[in-house]
Amino acid sequence: MCGIAGITDTPNVSVSLYWALYALQHRGQESAGIFTYDGKSVQKHKGYGLVSEVFNGPILESLAGKTGIGHVRYPTTGGSKPENIQPFHFMFRGHVLSLVHNGNLVNTNELRYEYEGRGHIFSTTSDTEVIAAILANEIIHDHTPDEAVSYCMRMIRGSYAVIFMLDGILYAFRDPLGIKPLCLGKIENGGFILASESVALDSVGAIFVRDVVPGESVRLEDGTVYSRKMMKAKSCAHCVFEYIYFARADSIIDGVSVYDVRRRTGELLAKQAPAKADLISPVPDSGTAAATGYSRESRIPFREALIKNRYTGRTFIMPSQEKREIAVRMKLNPVRGHIKDKSVVLVDDSIVRGTTSKKILSLVREFGAKEIHLRIASPQIIAPCYLGTDFPTRSELIASMKPVAEVEKEIQATSLAHISLEGLIEAIGIPREDLCLGCLTGKYPVAIDGEEEEKRGITMVDSYSRPSKV
Amino acid sequence: MCGIAGITDTPNVSVSLYWALYALQHRGQESAGIFTYDGKSVQKHKGYGLVSEVFNGPILESLAGKTGIGHVRYPTTGGSKPENIQPFHFMFRGHVLSLVHNGNLVNTNELRYEYEGRGHIFSTTSDTEVIAAILANEIIHDHTPDEAVSYCMRMIRGSYAVIFMLDGILYAFRDPLGIKPLCLGKIENGGFILASESVALDSVGAIFVRDVVPGESVRLEDGTVYSRKMMKAKSCAHCVFEYIYFARADSIIDGVSVYDVRRRTGELLAKQAPAKADLISPVPDSGTAAATGYSRESRIPFREALIKNRYTGRTFIMPSQEKREIAVRMKLNPVRGHIKDKSVVLVDDSIVRGTTSKKILSLVREFGAKEIHLRIASPQIIAPCYLGTDFPTRSELIASMKPVAEVEKEIQATSLAHISLEGLIEAIGIPREDLCLGCLTGKYPVAIDGEEEEKRGITMVDSYSRPSKV
Amino acid sequence: MCGIAGITDTPNVSVSLYWALYALQHRGQESAGIFTYDGKSVQKHKGYGLVSEVFNGPILESLAGKTGIGHVRYPTTGGSKPENIQPFHFMFRGHVLSLVHNGNLVNTNELRYEYEGRGHIFSTTSDTEVIAAILANEIIHDHTPDEAVSYCMRMIRGSYAVIFMLDGILYAFRDPLGIKPLCLGKIENGGFILASESVALDSVGAIFVRDVVPGESVRLEDGTVYSRKMMKAKSCAHCVFEYIYFARADSIIDGVSVYDVRRRTGELLAKQAPAKADLISPVPDSGTAAATGYSRESRIPFREALIKNRYTGRTFIMPSQEKREIAVRMKLNPVRGHIKDKSVVLVDDSIVRGTTSKKILSLVREFGAKEIHLRIASPQIIAPCYLGTDFPTRSELIASMKPVAEVEKEIQATSLAHISLEGLIEAIGIPREDLCLGCLTGKYPVAIDGEEEEKRGITMVDSYSRPSKV
Amino acid sequence: MCGIAGITDTPNVSVSLYWALYALQHRGQESAGIFTYDGKSVQKHKGYGLVSEVFNGPILESLAGKTGIGHVRYPTTGGSKPENIQPFHFMFRGHVLSLVHNGNLVNTNELRYEYEGRGHIFSTTSDTEVIAAILANEIIHDHTPDEAVSYCMRMIRGSYAVIFMLDGILYAFRDPLGIKPLCLGKIENGGFILASESVALDSVGAIFVRDVVPGESVRLEDGTVYSRKMMKAKSCAHCVFEYIYFARADSIIDGVSVYDVRRRTGELLAKQAPAKADLISPVPDSGTAAATGYSRESRIPFREALIKNRYTGRTFIMPSQEKREIAVRMKLNPVRGHIKDKSVVLVDDSIVRGTTSKKILSLVREFGAKEIHLRIASPQIIAPCYLGTDFPTRSELIASMKPVAEVEKEIQATSLAHISLEGLIEAIGIPREDLCLGCLTGKYPVAIDGEEEEKRGITMVDSYSRPSKV
Repeated sequence: MCGIAGITDTPNVSVSLYWALYALQHRGQESAGIFTYDGKSVQKHKGYGLVSEVFNGPILESLAGKTGIGHVRYPTTGGSKPENIQPFHFMFRGHVLSLVHNGNLVNTNELRYEYEGRGHIFSTTSDTEVIAAILANEIIHDHTPDEAVSYCMRMIRGSYAVIFMLDGILYAFRDPLGIKPLCLGKIENGGFILASESVALDSVGAIFVRDVVPGESVRLEDGTVYSRKMMKAKSCAHCVFEYIYFARADSIIDGVSVYDVRRRTGELLAKQAPAKADLISPVPDSGTAAATGYSRESRIPFREALIKNRYTGRTFIMPSQEKREIAVRMKLNPVRGHIKDKSVVLVDDSIVRGTTSKKILSLVREFGAKEIHLRIASPQIIAPCYLGTDFPTRSELIASMKPVAEVEKEIQATSLAHISLEGLIEAIGIPREDLCLGCLTGKYPVAIDGEEEEKRGITMVDSYSRPSKV
Repeated sequence: MCGIAGITDTPNVSVSLYWALYALQHRGQESAGIFTYDGKSVQKHKGYGLVSEVFNGPILESLAGKTGIGHVRYPTTGGSKPENIQPFHFMFRGHVLSLVHNGNLVNTNELRYEYEGRGHIFSTTSDTEVIAAILANEIIHDHTPDEAVSYCMRMIRGSYAVIFMLDGILYAFRDPLGIKPLCLGKIENGGFILASESVALDSVGAIFVRDVVPGESVRLEDGTVYSRKMMKAKSCAHCVFEYIYFARADSIIDGVSVYDVRRRTGELLAKQAPAKADLISPVPDSGTAAATGYSRESRIPFREALIKNRYTGRTFIMPSQEKREIAVRMKLNPVRGHIKDKSVVLVDDSIVRGTTSKKILSLVREFGAKEIHLRIASPQIIAPCYLGTDFPTRSELIASMKPVAEVEKEIQATSLAHISLEGLIEAIGIPREDLCLGCLTGKYPVAIDGEEEEKRGITMVDSYSRPSKV
Repeated sequence: MCGIAGITDTPNVSVSLYWALYALQHRGQESAGIFTYDGKSVQKHKGYGLVSEVFNGPILESLAGKTGIGHVRYPTTGGSKPENIQPFHFMFRGHVLSLVHNGNLVNTNELRYEYEGRGHIFSTTSDTEVIAAILANEIIHDHTPDEAVSYCMRMIRGSYAVIFMLDGILYAFRDPLGIKPLCLGKIENGGFILASESVALDSVGAIFVRDVVPGESVRLEDGTVYSRKMMKAKSCAHCVFEYIYFARADSIIDGVSVYDVRRRTGELLAKQAPAKADLISPVPDSGTAAATGYSRESRIPFREALIKNRYTGRTFIMPSQEKREIAVRMKLNPVRGHIKDKSVVLVDDSIVRGTTSKKILSLVREFGAKEIHLRIASPQIIAPCYLGTDFPTRSELIASMKPVAEVEKEIQATSLAHISLEGLIEAIGIPREDLCLGCLTGKYPVAIDGEEEEKRGITMVDSYSRPSKV
Repeated sequence: MCGIAGITDTPNVSVSLYWALYALQHRGQESAGIFTYDGKSVQKHKGYGLVSEVFNGPILESLAGKTGIGHVRYPTTGGSKPENIQPFHFMFRGHVLSLVHNGNLVNTNELRYEYEGRGHIFSTTSDTEVIAAILANEIIHDHTPDEAVSYCMRMIRGSYAVIFMLDGILYAFRDPLGIKPLCLGKIENGGFILASESVALDSVGAIFVRDVVPGESVRLEDGTVYSRKMMKAKSCAHCVFEYIYFARADSIIDGVSVYDVRRRTGELLAKQAPAKADLISPVPDSGTAAATGYSRESRIPFREALIKNRYTGRTFIMPSQEKREIAVRMKLNPVRGHIKDKSVVLVDDSIVRGTTSKKILSLVREFGAKEIHLRIASPQIIAPCYLGTDFPTRSELIASMKPVAEVEKEIQATSLAHISLEGLIEAIGIPREDLCLGCLTGKYPVAIDGEEEEKRGITMVDSYSRPSKV
């Protein structure tokens, strides 16, 4: 998971990009980067850390220009390499290409092999370099940027929302299934903004225009949005986990308010899995919206049983287990008066490995709870994600290995219940066939080796003829 | 406002102090310090920044010993000087004295003058150095530490919770009115812990023993708490602002749960100042508990109209006004779907200058709210604080200068209401005469030049005879 | 100018590379990098700063393995970009290629154009990426590493000493004219070391084996040096500026002691341009060796008129001119007693723009020198360098624009004299036809657009047949 | 050893102090500090590191004012504590006192005991705080600053050069024996400068006025130097080690050029201990001046056998012995061509423990020297220093434990010779009775417990009457 943004025709664009990335910070805290085009060349700055750590006033000033792109990156499990920090930048035949990408390709290896054969040598392990290699290769061979995008989308498979800046002009395209979000806004007295979530638009005072349509390619030039539908699919595959966890509650993604989805999951959970209890509490912060819904529906009071410590930063971790227990307690402190001798409903967004739930319940028990009913605002996660979410393998997903009753016992909950798949779909309000439910069903909207595919009927719709020879 | 902690007889005491300070981080983010006694000498580390920034593994390891004290400091308006970072440390006649202090003396100038005359020259501007000078002066003149504390408490006037380490032994004392909090806990397999709030006890797995009593002095030695009542008062003067804003919601201070107080203020507000509205929303985070109370009582749904950005850090601030508006928007993002064409009750903890409320209401209006009813979980702040809270002067306190109706108009609220003073007192559940209400009434429990005093009848209770001559 | 090193078969190779780069620090202070091969993958670390700043214990520990390469980079005038920090790293068809380069290609643009056409898109502006692209392209097309080097040397034109690590095996090659230095050593109880200068060998306790021969390619594998002569030339073109300024005085380059060359230039200068004076003083540190020679020959005492401040670091620079004068004075402090009313011979290594000489003479005059005879241990620099030295254009080279007499007047020297070209060649002791004298004569050993070429008769000597098709 | 400076009536005094401290950096690299008086209050900045690391543009700008003081501190063996970083600052009865001190008191403990009794509690372990306590105590008791200085000098015993700033006025005083240096200069278009060495005057373009006389106190006010002779002594006790090692070669201390002293020691050594050799080389940098003298007198050529690596910084140190050997080699690299099969005279300034000499000789031997004659430009150091030099105890001073012949054998020198005490005194040119030769003779100019005293007949000369009662 990552966050991307691009802005055109806006004075001091680096400052606006700074605020846009700042609003997308929840999508990635490992690294951040902003590249701008100053009319002649590309100004670049990127590094490890939060947006507020990587940039400061003098750096933003040095990133001159009215057009630029930015990226925040999620700490991936596989170790983080400096060369993988985005944006990426390439030069060829007088062109300069900068690029950011949110998503994950599933045919990276084949494409790398192919393009190594065509003469490109890779300097990163990122699938984003593959996208750049394809685009550049087309452009070098005298294709237009639009043709390059068309060919690129034909070649790559997976989830992708891409913004790129070619010789100072901003382009973007979104995968034909709309797996990863991308929306478009208009900045007052400025140009356009493209970003992963609508909160980035709010952060720069931009008006929401529309989502970039799945399979669409846009070019932002001369104050105009040039749009081209490159690919179409019979149905979409919007990632449900954006609604469950990724996106900020105050975002609207593909026309649906994230907060509303979460609140409705809470309401449905209260119907599907009622509990007699003294209070409803979220596991902060991701369970809050669902907990308000559960409380509303059940008429059991909303009362925080756990308070989150707001001053976290990167804490010193002692090696020993005992101390790590303290570390968990440090981030989440129980409110004794709300818990002691009480029946508590805890509402959380999801369970992945189950280890965090176990620790939280142990903590709440320790503070004297009589009963703990854990309600989860998502169905059981039983399969990995190949399209951008950093889930572990099946053997580490507790729901993939054990039935609910066993998990309930293992985490020592009085009761444990998930919202049903149908409930979640109802809460989202998007037809089932337009959602990617891979992690919940094990069936994926794109072909993945060894996994079951639910085909979406993707076809190219543009009329470019593609020369057979590279 | 600051946070203090002291721990005895606990292996790797620096790590426990680290977690204790981490839990008290909300009381001060400017600087942090930990001093430990390793059996022979005092190991010291302090600096600007959050606890997680000032300390790391090697530093904590270098702070050897089983007994130590720590401090987190609030960024005061008057500019911050490195020499004022606590703990303080002094040496005299073979003794080593380290000291932390939360509170504010009101007779600092007289005492500095007095002790300069007695031969002490000051190296800081802090009132804490005055306390150290008095203690040291007594000990040099062959008084016991207990006698020194007794004399010190007789001399100083104001709010104070002090923990000091003299030659490796931990002592603490609290002002006779109990203005600032201080509580005592027992660490499993360890010694005792003293801290500003009970959350620090939770953070190291300590059992709450009791609050240090107003006017009490304690010595922690050989696994025993030696207690001495030094001063008594006819009534106390617990700071109400601890309950309104300072303390963490999950703390219990002087026997009262902070979260409960805040929730009850919300319930009482709903009775005293009802509003017809579509939703109740807190101004996060400090209004959350009161908002749940207001929602519970009014039966209007609790729904967040504003989401706080959790990744703040120290952000780059552009000089121009326009950009600062963006900065406010960055920390608090409205949920459009909850606001648009809706009647909203916003619940906040207090209004000081009124500028933040104005900006928040402007933001909520901009996102389409039909009506905004602002409810404040504290009475109007009409007077400055001389006892530890960093309020501005009367001319900057909006409630000191304007009636509610005018403030309502200025911030453009559909309606504005504060909880009544009686309501707040009822919510706290402590008799009015045992509270310091200075900022709400302009009457103070200690003598302050030019201000009205509400005497509390303080007398010394110990039997030490004090030689008339230094 | 840069410094490079590579080491094989040595435990904790990162530490040895650290010391080797440390010894080469004079060749580049802008950035440093070490990449190692741990048996499975390449471990990488590089960044801006001195070797001692970029690396520390934990970082060196994380660079596991017995084989690795390193680089120190000179701050170039054209602005420094993070992506240009070496070593570079590339991946293709399961191969991993890391590479360092000292030198400058003169046909970079043609090669970039060519390889962009072949499918490579460039992510840096460095000519080093061109070398990598050629090598990788050959290897992908099933040529052996030796064949790849052969083809690469055939394609590139300019100065180059390259060390690369392909799948954990170390290779190196040097341009056919031997413009940039590269030597080979044997580490006791370890493997081999390749480095720009012999001081790097000394620093790890290695025995000097020999210089890598111009046009030679070596592979270090299984404790053996596999050598292949790839190209030959009728004569070499060793850079004279290595002897004049670049190399450390204690290095031996292509069989010649740098210190001896410099001392002999001083002796010859004393003969060619004698001066009646009270003392001979170097401009420290680069004039020291020549000054000892001048003193020896002239029998005028060697006595430092200027002392260099050893604690420099990056100093704060005030914007105003007046303050910058102070800055010069700070780095070089005159010894008043040696200067006042004395006739002084100052010996420096070279004059480029003339601005520094002007300031130094002004300083020495201000301290009371009666006469200042400036003696320069190199001929006049009249032409730019295209092969690795960061000289300015002709219009900024003072000797290119003005005769010596005018320069003498401009810098207000009592007398100014350079060693003759013949004198320098005699001091170096290498035949004139084997030296690159481009900056002194304007005639270059390789073809450069708009400049006169002195051909060296380069031919390929290896027998690899090269398929005509990529 | 430390360096101090104070400047009056100079715009942007912080920048001038920065350059002055920068010029004094050789006297202390552990920490640096500058305090200025901006007309109303004292602006302060100090920290660990080199002057160029502790300060930058914005910090210097924030240090507003025309008058200020500064300090650089030597890393003392006894561990470094942040609270000991100078300048020190104190406040009392409306006065502000900032203070810097170079030297060492020998009656610190008695004075601390005394002033603890008088009511001062100490917050540092530094003898400088004692000086401040005495001055402040006098001023509080209505004595003038001059009287305070007079009383302070009467009370303290040892070496001291002190500059202090009281309410924005600059004062200085120097011990009656003139052990530590202090000189006065006039800044063009500015006020006065006081500094440890004349190089600091040069660095800000100041004209040397005179040394502060031993026992003198000065006040710099209204562009005038008010001088008062506070104490007198029959003879002085200038520290010989300033000439041998401490001071920069380009300084003039108490009328004597340091470079000349060192050169003359080399000439006298050549007479006293001639050697047949191929070359004379310094151990850089401290032996350079003496080596030029030795070469001049002996007519053996001066030629560097060892080159110092100029890019040192704080290097990574491997734990193992073997690697530490490399570390030594890294800082000092032998010039093989000058050493191999040659007879070398190495000239160094002094031998303390003998360990460094041993390593250097081992290194030079390893590079093939036939003979190594070590010549030391100071007599044998046989006793500790109590007056400011960080020598070890007698048992660690090699010359205190072993005769020269044994040391010669231990370090494996072909021959080893020191200059005689008489030779050193002749080279300095100051009468023997006016020098402190404690470390060379074991007889000290002040009373030290357990050591022999050579009395200098110190008496107070001022006419202040001192009230018997504090």
